[in-house]
Order: sequence, then C-alpha cells, then structure tokens
Amino acid sequence: MLPAGSPRYVVLSGGVGGAKFALGLSRVLRPEQLTIIANTGDDFTHLGLAISPDLDTLMYTLAGMVNEQTGWGCRDETWSCLAGLEALGAETWFRLGDRDLATHLERTRLLATGQTLTQVTRHLCAQLGVAVNLLPMSDAPIRTLIDSDAGTLAFQDYFVRRRAEPRVTGLRYDGATRAPPTAALASLLTDPDLAAIFIAPSNPYLSIDPILAIPSLAAALRSSAAPVIAISPIVGGRALKGPTAKIMGELGVPVTAGAIAHHYRDLLDGYILDDSDRAEADALLAGGLAVGATHTVMTTLEDRMHLARFALGFAAPR
Amino acid sequence: MLPAGSPRYVVLSGGVGGAKFALGLSRVLRPEQLTIIANTGDDFTHLGLAISPDLDTLMYTLAGMVNEQTGWGCRDETWSCLAGLEALGAETWFRLGDRDLATHLERTRLLATGQTLTQVTRHLCAQLGVAVNLLPMSDAPIRTLIDSDAGTLAFQDYFVRRRAEPRVTGLRYDGATRAPPTAALASLLTDPDLAAIFIAPSNPYLSIDPILAIPSLAAALRSSAAPVIAISPIVGGRALKGPTAKIMGELGVPVTAGAIAHHYRDLLDGYILDDSDRAEADALLAGGLAVGATHTVMTTLEDRMHLARFALGFAAPR
Repeated sequence: MLPAGSPRYVVLSGGVGGAKFALGLSRVLRPEQLTIIANTGDDFTHLGLAISPDLDTLMYTLAGMVNEQTGWGCRDETWSCLAGLEALGAETWFRLGDRDLATHLERTRLLATGQTLTQVTRHLCAQLGVAVNLLPMSDAPIRTLIDSDAGTLAFQDYFVRRRAEPRVTGLRYDGATRAPPTAALASLLTDPDLAAIFIAPSNPYLSIDPILAIPSLAAALRSSAAPVIAISPIVGGRALKGPTAKIMGELGVPVTAGAIAHHYRDLLDGYILDDSDRAEADALLAGGLAVGATHTVMTTLEDRMHLARFALGFAAPR
Repeated sequence: MLPAGSPRYVVLSGGVGGAKFALGLSRVLRPEQLTIIANTGDDFTHLGLAISPDLDTLMYTLAGMVNEQTGWGCRDETWSCLAGLEALGAETWFRLGDRDLATHLERTRLLATGQTLTQVTRHLCAQLGVAVNLLPMSDAPIRTLIDSDAGTLAFQDYFVRRRAEPRVTGLRYDGATRAPPTAALASLLTDPDLAAIFIAPSNPYLSIDPILAIPSLAAALRSSAAPVIAISPIVGGRALKGPTAKIMGELGVPVTAGAIAHHYRDLLDGYILDDSDRAEADALLAGGLAVGATHTVMTTLEDRMHLARFALGFAAPR
C-alpha cells in the first residue's frame, strides 16, 4: 500500500487506445497509484465462454504480452483452435487465439464458481504480474446495443462480424441503469487522495458512454473532488483507430476534438487535445474548460509515457 | 444406405487400442457396414468443457488426424492454451491441445443447445469426414469410479492425474443401471443384417465393462442373433498398453489371454488371441468357445487391417 497522501489516479478506458494511455501511466506512476475502470459493454458469451475484450486488451497490454501489431490479443499467438472450429463448421467470425482462450476458459470457470468479474479480473491480473488495479465498470452484465440501418445489433455483431459497417442511429447500454455499484468502485471515487480522473482517448460512444451510463458511477464522477480530464481521440479531424469518426458523422456530430469535449461537457474540468487541433482550444477555453495541447498520437512507448506525463502535469493543482 | 442383406458389424471399444482395430475394420469394410459403440465412462467436465476422451480418440483416428505417436489427441497439435492456463495458475494436469479444444468447445456448445451426445457425435464426425457410424454407449452421464488404496477416484483423477498408480480394489459405473438405451443403439442390435459384435482389444475394466454395465445394452448383446467375439488385449502375458495387466494383478486375476475370455464368459461366442498365447486355446475350446489365433499386435496400418480381416473371417458363418 502507498502511504496516505500519495496521489492516486483513475482512468476510464476502452480497449486499444485506452490501453496505450494506461500503459504510459503505469510506466510513470507506481502501480498502486493507478486504477483503470474498464468498459464491459463489449462483453459477451461466445461458444460458452465469458469474453471481456476491453479487460483483456488492458490486461495483456499492462502484462507486456499484447500483440503490438494489432493492439489486442496475445503476442506470439497460435490459431489451432480456430482452425479446428472452422473444420467443425463452428462460428469463427470472432478471432479466438489459443493463448487468449486460456483467459476465457479460466474466467468462465471462475465466474461459474460464483466469483464476481471484479474478483476474477484481480486474480487473472495477479497471475500475469499486473500490479495496476484493473476493475470492470460493473459486475452486472451491461450490453452495448447499436441501433443501426441493419436493425438493433449486439456489440460484437456490429463491431466484429459486420466490421462496424452499418450506419449507427443510436446506442443503448442495456442493464446499465439497474447495475449496482461495485464495492471496489464505490470506495475508489471518494478516496481523498484521488488526484484526477482521466477519460482515455477511447471511442466515446462504444467505450466510455457505457461506463457513464451506470448511474452510481456517473454520480460519483460528478461529485468527486478530483478533476475529470478527457483526452481527445480525434486528431486533426480524424480518429486514429476504429469507427469513432464514422459514428460521429452518422450521428450528425462534427468530427472535431471540440465535439468530443462537448460530448463530455457535463463532466469535464479539463481537456487534452492534440497539437494539430490547437486552433480549437480558444473556443473551449472561452467555454470555461481548462485545455492542454500536446502530441497525443501514441506510436511508441515513449509517446505513451509522454502523454501520461503531460496528463499528470496538466492535472496537478496550479 | 447399403442394400438389405449386406453384413453389418458392431464394435464395442475404448480409446487407443480399440481405435486401432476400428480403423482396421473401417479400411476393409464399407463405412456403412461398421458401427462403433464407444465407452463414455471416461467422460468428464473439465474447465467447463464436456470432454469425451474415447469418442475423440476414435473420431480422430477414423478421421486420419490422430497423433500417431501417442495414439490420442491431434497430429501437429499446438499447446498455447495449456501454456496460458499454466501462466494463469489454472489446472493443467489434463493435457488439452489447442486443436483438440475446438472439439470440446463445439461439443459443449451443442450439448448446451439440447442435442444428445449421439447427435453431437454424429455432427462432429460428419464435419471431419468420418463416415463410420460412431455412437456413444449412452446419452446419459455414466462415470467410471475406481475404488483404490487412495480412496474412490473419478476416472481421470485415477488415470491421468495419478497415472493409474493407485492399487485398484474395485470398479463402479455410476449411472449405468439407470441409463436408458439410446434409440440409435436399440435398433442397431436387432438389425437382422448384423453379422458380428466385436469386443475390441481394450481394457475390460476401464473401457468395456462400462458399456456392459448398461442393462439394456447388455441384454441386447445377449439376445442378439449375431455372434459376440472378443479380441484379447493381453499378448504373451502382458498388456500392450495401459494398466490392463496391472489392474488384473491387483484384482487377483491371472494376467493371461484366457482370463480375459473368462471375464466375458457370459457373452462370448468366439475369442481371438495372439499367436503367442496359442497354448491357451485348447482349454478355451474345451470350455465350448470358438477360438482363433493370429498376429494381434497392431503396429502398422497393415497390422490393423490384417486383424480386421482375420476377425471378419472368424466371424463368418461356417
């Protein structure tokens, strides 16, 4: 445990992009200072396995075992089981790696014994040497549903099977409003040593809004004494990865860093955007938001640590 | 379908040894002529997966994808998931290969949809191009229990985890007496074209007795017009593989081919033993049993086909 008074930080995160930022923070903080609240709206049961894509991406990234090329899954992965499933005529649209399967099997087994997702995640992280506190946003099932021109779609159906191609008309987070707060999260956000809450540069609709849809969590964020600071996932009018920009366009939102700040407006105390979007800072400052600009594109580990250091400095009391 | 009047054959079988004989038969008969009734007393649930070791060994052998070195599991197997389970501190005493996992995942998924093990096995075989009729001895769970000097042990605990080291004092087949006959088996054994029922050279206690413990199946075997013919798993006073001889010794049974015939005495019409045990034939013949002797050791595919041809000839009406 850290001595009382050591600053602590919370990050709300989705998968790949958020994991890069979380890794940067984990390299410039002591692990005990950092808690990551992961989106579980993407979670689903597939072939009888309880799969938590964002928790896994964060865990693999923090354990140093993520596939650096894809940003998700395991490094040096093999695919024999998937080939076997294909030979058996089973579903193979969700890419299950052999090493990755161990995580799903063990999670499924432990959940079946009555452990919560929070407990299971803590166990898996401990086994893999992840000292950072990684928490699911909820122990209750919350499922992101995408209303689209192809009908209402479950997240993985939309995102993986249909490659985010349908046109999004709205999003829902089924189960969020009735999800009780987890004990781990309830105490976390009232910690007097909490120095900042970061919203990672993740997809707002698919990764962060599911977290914010939990009433107890949203209320705790709003009432927390710590500043809430978001990092823009939009750089130069484009999303670096995934369908963020595409969905913004489909929802009639301008694809700008400013629009992301506007999306989180009720929550934010500060906002970090990319140098290339510096022109948008003035309008945000005029709206009363503290704004920082830096190089936010995280290609290398040094980039991730740079953004982490910048965010920590930006959050420091002035 | 075969024309009426084509001879049909049934084999009662365990895993490795029985699978070699079954493969031999499959190469000298048309697939429609052959039905294999597999022991499912070894079946168990492991890490949430429904595992049927003998069905899988038979299926992989007949599909030409078995690991020839071990006699079980898949050729060109990878072990990433097992390594992952080990890293997560999960149980790894049961060697789950990555390719093999696909079978367990798909079986578990299909059983959860309400299909019977018979239906699931038929589906998996069809996907892998196995045209032989492979049937589980039951769709109900039957579990072989080993009474031993280490207490009463579940099969896989005894056989895999403890490497068959405990001293066996008795065996039970939990669930067998209340297992209803499967529709597929009920019609099979009254087929007028049934020409012979073979008991494969499998372990009598661990592989064949679980099948015979099902009352409806044992009664059908006894009342069948077709001859029941066993092939000795003992060659020259030794078991070629596995703990057959060890268990016979522990149960106070002489380790001879003749003792195996005696074990099945209520059922048998004929018995095939190895040339090296020819000296035992006279006593068996004197007891009223038809006896054949040949080379029964199945090292090569040619050996398997030889034993199959010999067994078919031995079964033919004289």
